[in-house]
Amino acid sequence: MKEMESLSKKSSASPLDVAATVEAVFGCKWSLRILELIRQGVCRPGAIERALEGLTPKVQTYYFRRMVALGILERRVYPEIPPRVEYHLTDFGLRFMPILDSIAELQRDLKDIAANDEEGPGT
Amino acid sequence: MKEMESLSKKSSASPLDVAATVEAVFGCKWSLRILELIRQGVCRPGAIERALEGLTPKVQTYYFRRMVALGILERRVYPEIPPRVEYHLTDFGLRFMPILDSIAELQRDLKDIAANDEEGPGT
Repeated sequence: MKEMESLSKKSSASPLDVAATVEAVFGCKWSLRILELIRQGVCRPGAIERALEGLTPKVQTYYFRRMVALGILERRVYPEIPPRVEYHLTDFGLRFMPILDSIAELQRDLKDIAANDEEGPGT
Repeated sequence: MKEMESLSKKSSASPLDVAATVEAVFGCKWSLRILELIRQGVCRPGAIERALEGLTPKVQTYYFRRMVALGILERRVYPEIPPRVEYHLTDFGLRFMPILDSIAELQRDLKDIAANDEEGPGT
C-alpha cells in the first residue's frame, strides 16, 4: 500500500499510458542507456555524461526532462554547495523497467534469428 | 533451439519491432479480447464472434489479418468439409503475451490509483 501511495504521486495528474510510454522510451537508444546507468546506481548527470560517449549535456537534459515528464525518473536536488542533482527511478519506473527488459530480450532474439537466417545456407 | 527455429519462420521477412507491436495491440480493445480468448483455447472465428458481443465478422476478420501480419497469430485451415479455420498464437505470440500482461497489470494499478485520487478527500 505504501508503494501504491508513492506511485500515485507521479500519476495523479493523468493516468499514464504504459504502452505509449514503452514505445516512447524503447525507440530511443539514449533513454535506454541512461535508464540502464541509473538502475546501476550511476545517477548524477556528470557521471552519466562521462559514461556515455557522444551525449552532450544539452541532449542529456532533454532526455532527463522527457523521462521525468513520462513519470519514469524523478529529479532530486540536494541543498549543498554546489547543489547536488541526482535522477532516480520512480516507483512507476521501477515497475516499468522489467517490461522494457522483456521487450529487449524478445527483440534481441528476433534480431539474432533474422541474422542467422541471412547468413544461413539455402536462403 | 526448436522453439527458435519455429520462431524464425514468422520473423524472417523482417525483424519485428516489439515495442511498436505492443503499442499497436495494446491500444486496441478488440485485439486484446480476441487474444485472451485464443489463449484460453477459443480459437475458431465463430466461437470468438459468439463470445464477443458487438464484434461483427467483418471487423473480426480485420483484426485476425492484422495480428497475423504482426506475427502474433497464425491461421490454420484444416481440409475438412466444411473447412475448419483456427487461429493460434505463434511462438512470438506466446512470448509476447506475458509482456502484454505486465503492461495491463501496471496500467490497471495506475488507473486504480487515479480513481482513488479523484474519490479521495482533500482533492
